[in-house]
Amino acid sequence: MTFRDDAHEAVEWAARYLEQVGEYPVLARVEPGELRAKLPPAPPDEGEPFSAVLRDLDELLLPAMTHWQSPRFFAYFANTASEPGILAELLIAATNQNGILWRTSPALMELELHVTGWAAQLLGLPDGWHGHIEDTASTATFASVIAARQATGGRVVVCSEHAHSSVEKAARMLGLDVRKVPVDSEFRLRPHALDLTDACCVVATVGTTSTTSVDPVPAIVDACAEAGVWLHVDAAYAGSAMVCPEHRWAFEGVERADSLVVNPHKWLMTPMDCSLLWTSRPVDFRAAFSLVPEYLRTADAVDSLGDYGPALGRRFRALKLWAVLRCVGRNGLQAMIREHVRLAELFEGWVRDEPGWELSAPRPFSVVCFRREGTDEDNERLLSAVNASGEIFISHTKLAGRYVLRLAIGNAGTIEADVQRAWDVLRREAASL
Amino acid sequence: MTFRDDAHEAVEWAARYLEQVGEYPVLARVEPGELRAKLPPAPPDEGEPFSAVLRDLDELLLPAMTHWQSPRFFAYFANTASEPGILAELLIAATNQNGILWRTSPALMELELHVTGWAAQLLGLPDGWHGHIEDTASTATFASVIAARQATGGRVVVCSEHAHSSVEKAARMLGLDVRKVPVDSEFRLRPHALDLTDACCVVATVGTTSTTSVDPVPAIVDACAEAGVWLHVDAAYAGSAMVCPEHRWAFEGVERADSLVVNPHKWLMTPMDCSLLWTSRPVDFRAAFSLVPEYLRTADAVDSLGDYGPALGRRFRALKLWAVLRCVGRNGLQAMIREHVRLAELFEGWVRDEPGWELSAPRPFSVVCFRREGTDEDNERLLSAVNASGEIFISHTKLAGRYVLRLAIGNAGTIEADVQRAWDVLRREAASL
Repeated sequence: MTFRDDAHEAVEWAARYLEQVGEYPVLARVEPGELRAKLPPAPPDEGEPFSAVLRDLDELLLPAMTHWQSPRFFAYFANTASEPGILAELLIAATNQNGILWRTSPALMELELHVTGWAAQLLGLPDGWHGHIEDTASTATFASVIAARQATGGRVVVCSEHAHSSVEKAARMLGLDVRKVPVDSEFRLRPHALDLTDACCVVATVGTTSTTSVDPVPAIVDACAEAGVWLHVDAAYAGSAMVCPEHRWAFEGVERADSLVVNPHKWLMTPMDCSLLWTSRPVDFRAAFSLVPEYLRTADAVDSLGDYGPALGRRFRALKLWAVLRCVGRNGLQAMIREHVRLAELFEGWVRDEPGWELSAPRPFSVVCFRREGTDEDNERLLSAVNASGEIFISHTKLAGRYVLRLAIGNAGTIEADVQRAWDVLRREAASL
Repeated sequence: MTFRDDAHEAVEWAARYLEQVGEYPVLARVEPGELRAKLPPAPPDEGEPFSAVLRDLDELLLPAMTHWQSPRFFAYFANTASEPGILAELLIAATNQNGILWRTSPALMELELHVTGWAAQLLGLPDGWHGHIEDTASTATFASVIAARQATGGRVVVCSEHAHSSVEKAARMLGLDVRKVPVDSEFRLRPHALDLTDACCVVATVGTTSTTSVDPVPAIVDACAEAGVWLHVDAAYAGSAMVCPEHRWAFEGVERADSLVVNPHKWLMTPMDCSLLWTSRPVDFRAAFSLVPEYLRTADAVDSLGDYGPALGRRFRALKLWAVLRCVGRNGLQAMIREHVRLAELFEGWVRDEPGWELSAPRPFSVVCFRREGTDEDNERLLSAVNASGEIFISHTKLAGRYVLRLAIGNAGTIEADVQRAWDVLRREAASL
């Protein structure tokens, strides 16, 4: 078999997968260890044809996948690997660019700077920020805390109780302390409770993981400026919504931040992984990360993107974001985000109007937090039952000590009938418990 | 256009690229900023067809690429994105698995554990080590230093003068000190010069970046064991050679290490990025990295791979390594590595036998360090001239204060004629300077 033959078979596999993904149980129905027990204990001595990989993908791996591409994946932050993004990954791999230095791939480095500039325009960010791509928001936040610590000398990372776990993890990895600030009744950091003593940075969240609440960035940035503390904004999920002007209220004050992370692999139709990290303080990033050994020294008068984060080598991730932004366009992204927000609002209304159910938090974007009236155990059982149905997959959180269900809309294939189905499944399973 | 039509066009693009890559100038012939000046300053409002992306890939991006897939790419560590690896990237993107927790993709997590086990068998590692995949060796080393610091409490990272820059970078990011140990005449860490006072870890290198020298791991691991200091082994490049039993001498003592990194994206035919991190101390890794917030708490009695490194989410990288190991097989990998070592030995012999040229370091694997007799400036000019020819791309380093050329063989398409061509180009350009 030639590369072309194998490749066209792989394309057929992918095309069929995308056509059929809505028919699979969304949450994988396997027990831990079930897949491994079916895999050969040792690698083969002789190479096998690629068709054997595709066969095992169908027979062994597919049943062990949770289908993030399903239109009824409503857990965590639902997302989409769009078609241009998928095809760009093929091209990224075929060209195998590695952006260690400008000269090792001028295309990679310049496109990464360019496409982060395009994304900055789409989100309404200030001109002149330095953008680059990290794998995930965990890494982007980690890098920002490293830069902040070096720039300020502080030893405490400050964030709200509702900040993402990656903030606490970053602090722990660096041996720094975390100071958690209480939130108000709508799960937003209380700026009057900010204590910036010995702080290197505050991590404010625009779109928290549990409820997508928006911390009051204008008040936080004032406090940071006064105290000389770095402000990192985690907008991993909600940042993408800034493509729509009607959501820009949530970015008020962000133009004065020191660093910002937004994940196109969450809500901008880009396959895993692609996390945008911008900074208004590139000099401080370079001071934290730049280190050029002799074997990488060149006469090229260009710094390297590895000077802005932990890794030295990098994939050509910029290509997939470029492909998505071009093939979907600003209007296409706005249309998807608006439809997701509309669907979430619709679902929110159904819950509000139904006796025996309650909303658990405000819904600024496309995530609805809700629960069935009753005990936490009732809601936990309900979650298990709806997920076991295979029809939908939702997740949970705890708010004010109560177990709460989350329905997150974010897959580009999700239509109103899918959200209606989620609500039907929830009511049906609740009735039968 | 449907996904199938676009995808088949993308496949044709990739197939043609792989057929023609040997004909392009290996090192990109553009000036800094040249590509960006040709790109539209703003993203489009309306989506464009995918064919427009392919057109611009040909017309704008291709001339700005340095061709890592070329058989005459001999710089840094040459590598290969093999065909099964490329096609697996398409499938990784199409299924868009995200391994946050076991349940978010049992296939991803179990295949990652399984395939790192396969790789451990191929390299002759001890049974029972815990393996997972990071993006690059920089991250894997960074993670290991974090685990070591937490486990031991030490504040100094010890490595040889020839350790990779990522070691110093990791220490700097963590606010730790680095103590560099001198090397012997063959660029190997001198174990008698090891000072482990206040050390959290030693990073020993099997296959240093400049010369691929091998630190004396048995002596180092003895010293570490006695002092209670963590040993991390960086075998990012040379680790892959352990697929061949005749190279296993270089892993002597590694079976007693605390952690180990090997990059399949360097010499195991896997597309960027794929870096294997094993540890014999998984409990210490979990202590450093595990942190489960409420919204990720499940009843699944399985820990998550995010408990072993900095990031929370992860791509389905295991699929590409699995595809490569299956489609190439142990014999195929051995054959490639043996051929690369044979070609390097051949080139080494040519240099040794040619008046006016000299070898600058021993050659344990597939990288030859050499120079033209004369000044550093002569050699620097020679490097520029051969790279400007477009026929080959090599890089340099400094050894004992002298500017030295490096020819690294690592692309699966490289044949003897390519290495002969490199030697011809070098002698031709040297003669005309």
